[in-house]
Amino acid sequence: MIRELFTTIAILLLPIMLSANDGYKLWLQYYPIENPQAWQQDMLKKVSIAGENETLDIIKNELNIAAEGFFGQNPSFSKENPSLVIALKEQLPSYLASKASSKLGEEGFHIFSSDNQTVITANSQFGLLYGTFRLLQEMQKSNPLSETGIVDSPKVQHRVLNHWDNLDRTVERGYSGFSIWNWHRLPRHIDQQYLDYARANASLGINGTAITNVNANALILTPYYLEKAQALADAFRPYGIKLYLTARFSSPIEIGGLETADPQNEAVKQWWKDKAKEIYEYIPDFGGFLVKADSEGQPGPHNYGRTQAEGANMLADAVKPFGGIVMWRAFVYSENTPDDRHKQAYNEFVPIDGEFRENVIVQVKNGAIDFQPREPFHPLFGAMPNTPLMMEFQITQEYLGHDTHLAFLAPMYEEVLKEDTYINGEGSEVAKVIDGSLHNYSLTGMAGVANVGTDRNWTGHHFHQANWYAYGKLAWNPWESSEKIAEDWIKLTFTTEREFVEPVKKLMLNSHEMVVNYMTPLGIHHIMARSHHYGPGPWVTGGGRADWTSTYYHNASEKGMGFDRTLSGSNALEQYTPELQEKWGDLDLVPEKFLLWFHHLPWEHQMKSGNILWDEIALHYQKGVNEARENIKTWKNLEKHVDKYRFEHVLSFMEIQAEEAEWWRDAVLLYFGQYSGLPLPEGVEPPKHNLEYYMNIDHKFVPGI
Amino acid sequence: MIRELFTTIAILLLPIMLSANDGYKLWLQYYPIENPQAWQQDMLKKVSIAGENETLDIIKNELNIAAEGFFGQNPSFSKENPSLVIALKEQLPSYLASKASSKLGEEGFHIFSSDNQTVITANSQFGLLYGTFRLLQEMQKSNPLSETGIVDSPKVQHRVLNHWDNLDRTVERGYSGFSIWNWHRLPRHIDQQYLDYARANASLGINGTAITNVNANALILTPYYLEKAQALADAFRPYGIKLYLTARFSSPIEIGGLETADPQNEAVKQWWKDKAKEIYEYIPDFGGFLVKADSEGQPGPHNYGRTQAEGANMLADAVKPFGGIVMWRAFVYSENTPDDRHKQAYNEFVPIDGEFRENVIVQVKNGAIDFQPREPFHPLFGAMPNTPLMMEFQITQEYLGHDTHLAFLAPMYEEVLKEDTYINGEGSEVAKVIDGSLHNYSLTGMAGVANVGTDRNWTGHHFHQANWYAYGKLAWNPWESSEKIAEDWIKLTFTTEREFVEPVKKLMLNSHEMVVNYMTPLGIHHIMARSHHYGPGPWVTGGGRADWTSTYYHNASEKGMGFDRTLSGSNALEQYTPELQEKWGDLDLVPEKFLLWFHHLPWEHQMKSGNILWDEIALHYQKGVNEARENIKTWKNLEKHVDKYRFEHVLSFMEIQAEEAEWWRDAVLLYFGQYSGLPLPEGVEPPKHNLEYYMNIDHKFVPGI
Repeated sequence: MIRELFTTIAILLLPIMLSANDGYKLWLQYYPIENPQAWQQDMLKKVSIAGENETLDIIKNELNIAAEGFFGQNPSFSKENPSLVIALKEQLPSYLASKASSKLGEEGFHIFSSDNQTVITANSQFGLLYGTFRLLQEMQKSNPLSETGIVDSPKVQHRVLNHWDNLDRTVERGYSGFSIWNWHRLPRHIDQQYLDYARANASLGINGTAITNVNANALILTPYYLEKAQALADAFRPYGIKLYLTARFSSPIEIGGLETADPQNEAVKQWWKDKAKEIYEYIPDFGGFLVKADSEGQPGPHNYGRTQAEGANMLADAVKPFGGIVMWRAFVYSENTPDDRHKQAYNEFVPIDGEFRENVIVQVKNGAIDFQPREPFHPLFGAMPNTPLMMEFQITQEYLGHDTHLAFLAPMYEEVLKEDTYINGEGSEVAKVIDGSLHNYSLTGMAGVANVGTDRNWTGHHFHQANWYAYGKLAWNPWESSEKIAEDWIKLTFTTEREFVEPVKKLMLNSHEMVVNYMTPLGIHHIMARSHHYGPGPWVTGGGRADWTSTYYHNASEKGMGFDRTLSGSNALEQYTPELQEKWGDLDLVPEKFLLWFHHLPWEHQMKSGNILWDEIALHYQKGVNEARENIKTWKNLEKHVDKYRFEHVLSFMEIQAEEAEWWRDAVLLYFGQYSGLPLPEGVEPPKHNLEYYMNIDHKFVPGI
Repeated sequence: MIRELFTTIAILLLPIMLSANDGYKLWLQYYPIENPQAWQQDMLKKVSIAGENETLDIIKNELNIAAEGFFGQNPSFSKENPSLVIALKEQLPSYLASKASSKLGEEGFHIFSSDNQTVITANSQFGLLYGTFRLLQEMQKSNPLSETGIVDSPKVQHRVLNHWDNLDRTVERGYSGFSIWNWHRLPRHIDQQYLDYARANASLGINGTAITNVNANALILTPYYLEKAQALADAFRPYGIKLYLTARFSSPIEIGGLETADPQNEAVKQWWKDKAKEIYEYIPDFGGFLVKADSEGQPGPHNYGRTQAEGANMLADAVKPFGGIVMWRAFVYSENTPDDRHKQAYNEFVPIDGEFRENVIVQVKNGAIDFQPREPFHPLFGAMPNTPLMMEFQITQEYLGHDTHLAFLAPMYEEVLKEDTYINGEGSEVAKVIDGSLHNYSLTGMAGVANVGTDRNWTGHHFHQANWYAYGKLAWNPWESSEKIAEDWIKLTFTTEREFVEPVKKLMLNSHEMVVNYMTPLGIHHIMARSHHYGPGPWVTGGGRADWTSTYYHNASEKGMGFDRTLSGSNALEQYTPELQEKWGDLDLVPEKFLLWFHHLPWEHQMKSGNILWDEIALHYQKGVNEARENIKTWKNLEKHVDKYRFEHVLSFMEIQAEEAEWWRDAVLLYFGQYSGLPLPEGVEPPKHNLEYYMNIDHKFVPGI
């Protein structure tokens, strides 16, 4: 052991001390471009920026850093025959304005060449900022500019990070240290990290952030904290990022001194109106409220026999005069409802479709249960044509191995976005619900539960920076492909060398499926350890809530396993369109990745592969383990392409992942094996310990709860 | 407000992005040496290092970083006519060995020139490591090597950082973020920061670290955590740093399943022997235990009617066979003891002087109360000739404004170390107790309660890195002067330019007195807010414990204020030697800085200045405020000498400090003014608000508790 560690140390030491790359710079590395073409260097030599404001200062600064990093040169900023022109369309000379696209909208941009000039234009300063970041990203990737240039604009209005950060700086489901919001030093100290955070988001087009936990503390709405929130909003504003706060539904009681929080009570309504007015005095462009109500112990309209719409509308009316919106989460379920938890949100919200104010958007998790490694899309998508719905993805890996398990999540997001709801017949993909085109929503949005913390590289695992990046890119364009996202991120973060890019891309694109294989293959779900969800816990049963146990979800017995959501079971299937009921309800048609999500099947069930279910399950777990081991080999072969610091950090996390993949395989197969009574098929390694050993593992102070 | 912030942002932005200096490199900046002399560059050209081990790898690496930073050159390592020779004395050719000092001891070193060679020699690899760091520090400071070179060795054996870090990563009295120990990832992930931490300590000669809170959790002694502690010990070992753990006295009950923790119970004794044996299997060079017992709710020998010696000896016997020691804290006091808290440790420990095992050292805080901005030295120093005592300084600023108040603590440490106890007549300074020379102690040590956390610059305030540095230098040599420490730190951390060094040194050397002025001048003490100690709380009274209130300490009334510790009062004075009783007991002789520490005086008491006490108090508070404001001016004038990142960060903290100095002045003077009934003297600004306003300030989630 000692010897081992020392080698690690010896290896680690030199590089970091000489030229440390702790990953803080994320995908904005701006490393030197090898043999750059002349036109690239020229482009950043003489820059003309029309006007003066903080956002333009940021653009200027960004060009400085990039030119410095790419070519070791500093641009001169002047209006005389510039090589790069950055100006609003209205500021362009007519001969250039005429060439600019007319479909830029408020945040879009057009990058094009004209004679010897490159032009970045837009209808707003934030469009210019996004265009600048895009141009620099294309340069880093060494992509030439096409004839037509680049015309792009976001397909989703509200691209918002959700921070489950508490006021004591702990982060619920956070694994990369603690909250980057230092409330105690705010508002008087604006930490550079706040600006670097805003910059990173702007480089992806993220335009909003909800900085407090959805399990909310009413104190955030008191002047003591509003003054602090204001300081953050002021810091984010020039980056085009709006600030949102989570509203605890019972705030009128807790900080307002009222007896009730009933949304139909006039005093309560007035209290929220006054509170909103107060907030807007601190933050004139406050984005609005994010609310988790009637869920997991949070107060809500149910406490007063009111609907979710009545609750949401009260808050919506309060922020309406100031242009704010309410993001109301659909994650509503109760242990008192006997029904399959899968069905509850649908049952609660579909009947009130259309009853929400126009400045309310209902925020729906990608799946009906809770951010499992794989879930079918949430049946609400497509089911509320008269109520804008936004997507909530989880970037932080609550159920995906926490921060040490490499899982590139873009494929998971993409799988859901590209799934067809068949609501308006074929081609009614979830992405069309999110971009609003399917139902002509007046509001659109996508939320991502942030994975950033105080770790020096922001996200714990260096590769989890890619999930922040992927969320941003998909929020901008839900149709973006995982492969492009992966390739771009690799090139921006590490290098453009093919020998590195290709294998790493392959590894990333397979990583989510790998995690599914060793955690919850074939539609198995929610069998993680209790409460902290770290590691396997298929044996978790009993306690206050059945729907918080594993046995509730896997129903394993001598007869087999799986959750029957067909007609013979909870019939959650009925919440999907007939096309999907037919497909997913039919054992011959259902994709095996969803098999045990919808069906309870005997251990001997015949799979397409010819294996019986039990063998197929076991082989998936083994496959996941093998893939995790394979990643280590792949990564080791790439050592010469990566700086030592990040190489060693990633390697050590990959070793933890491979070890924990075995933990998952052994624990789960031993547990289910009790019921199947069947031997492990050939090719599956025997477990290292007995079931009791795994059931007795008790990790202390697991982060994130 | 908005405008204001934007300017800050605009200023901040550019530099940080281009070449960020977030302070992570501490005093090991190794910035380029301006017009270096040839001999300096030559010295780092060809280096011969005798032998091969991890510590020598670290030395080699350090030379690489330094040469790179100083001169942009890389040393070649070879045995052929090297310019720099690094070798143990026993490895030196006799003609060089003969020139090496014979008084190096185990950790000392000798740096000298011979012909065209510079030689670093020592009796141990750690001596070589210390010598290397010293040589590089002298180079950075551009100091020439004297004829005789540098012969140095530590005057104190155990130079130990105490981390009050909890297993959930919160840090008691920590203000720079959270614990750098990521227990969840240990032992499998060795973070680079652990190595950088060890390196920073080694560069100061710190040779031990107690990584867990003295308010201990017994879990740290279970295999689950011992495996993690082992990984840290392995990482620290090549840097010459031993690992210590805090032992919760009731562990035999909590994790041992015993009924009692009575130190006289055979099963308990045996449990600790077995536990020690187990720990040494994980960590062969485990340093030993640090214990807080019978204090502030911690269990201890008192629970069983045993003495502190009986408790300490049980643990000492357990680690003895393996060469471990026990650091037993003297911070023992109880609310059930009617006596002045000031007297309790003395009364408890002096009677048992000599009853401790030889591998026990009693750890005594610098003062008798609790790390106040100023305290007279603890009466135990000098009073236990037959029991080794070690010093405990607090580096983290529990009572000194937390992390935003610039207070360079070396002068506070120096004041205590240079104070004369008169135990063996004049010249019996506290430093001689600590270096063991006064009583020929067989064990010596100095502990510093760490101020490092997850903040990117380690210590929150950039200038608080200087307190970590100062502690290390004083632990190595308690006779070191504050001025030299300040000057060296400035040169290593920022620049050698006189125009910067001189004003910053002046500012630092005055900063502790400045804080005393606006917090607790003239011997006032313990009037901070309850529990978190952030901000003023002279009104704190009532609650479970009188000795945890402010009124207990200041005794303000119409008659006057102060704690009478003379014969007419608690007579804590009797615990000091007659010389000091005479001096401190006499109103004409007592230094005014200790006036209200030992005496209760009327508001009209005549001070040496000619002012009455009330006016003098008020003027001290105003002086502190003025000095805090002056610092801002001074710092602003130095902008061109500092990188933007650190300049802005320090400036923003200085502004907070000036603002909070006013808070202190206004709150305290309004409060005491109620009793004095006297007006504020000329020159003291009227308070901004009324007393009620200040009493109602209620900061939420203050860090460090």
